[in-house]
Amino acid sequence: MKKHYYPYTEFRDDLKTLVSNIDKPFDTIVGISRGGLSMAQMLGEYYDIRKVYAINSIGYDDTVKRDEVRIFNIPDLSDSKSVLIVDDIVDSGDTIVKILEILKEKFPQINFYVASIFYKKSAKIAPDWFVKEAPSWIDFFWTVDLKEDRI
Amino acid sequence: MKKHYYPYTEFRDDLKTLVSNIDKPFDTIVGISRGGLSMAQMLGEYYDIRKVYAINSIGYDDTVKRDEVRIFNIPDLSDSKSVLIVDDIVDSGDTIVKILEILKEKFPQINFYVASIFYKKSAKIAPDWFVKEAPSWIDFFWTVDLKEDRI
Repeated sequence: MKKHYYPYTEFRDDLKTLVSNIDKPFDTIVGISRGGLSMAQMLGEYYDIRKVYAINSIGYDDTVKRDEVRIFNIPDLSDSKSVLIVDDIVDSGDTIVKILEILKEKFPQINFYVASIFYKKSAKIAPDWFVKEAPSWIDFFWTVDLKEDRI
Repeated sequence: MKKHYYPYTEFRDDLKTLVSNIDKPFDTIVGISRGGLSMAQMLGEYYDIRKVYAINSIGYDDTVKRDEVRIFNIPDLSDSKSVLIVDDIVDSGDTIVKILEILKEKFPQINFYVASIFYKKSAKIAPDWFVKEAPSWIDFFWTVDLKEDRI
């Protein structure tokens, strides 16, 4: 499988494209941990939003039901009106579907939007905004940069 | 005031230094939002830790008591044993003192450690690990890169 290294400079440029596309207001950013955290931070800085939270998901194999996703560390969004959920990639869409289901049930009064850098057309759900289609394998800088000697 | 631009490449190298210094085990990482989120993400990837959470602080001026810090979005750490709290900079130390006070009271059984990139000697508290002393003003890449055209 061809690996695509995704450097910080490309991430920065992609975020610039993303913010030029986002055309709805929001007062809170929720980054899906871990993939969406850098993105959440930089968008929080860009939009001057202090309510930047994390939500966690972990995929696991169940013998009965496959591709199950467990969501934990759910933030309290009681005083938010409009929330942008961000992740590096919407791949199968399982995570984002589950997160939206939980958050909408818990906070029915909130508008939720989803933004990602990468998106696979085969996903169950499309983000409201994304930057590019995903190659088959991505080595994100935040995953590999501390492990290897890249310049 | 002389401004110091802090690029991603320096951040990456500083994190490499930081992980070579950290000599205690932990099972959870809490990033102080927003400054510690990219750091939390990259350390989570490096240590293969999925429990990467955010905690939020906001400073405000009270007419009676100055330099007050409000902490919110406190994560549930009930199933953690040892937690690394991370932030970009320990400046006055007010935020980290308050966060430790709240988390230690809520989770008395947990060992808490603190790591930051920058540290000011005048701070009320020193992190367990830090990389360098802070210059007077830092333009972090996550704050300025989406706003300006830097290459």
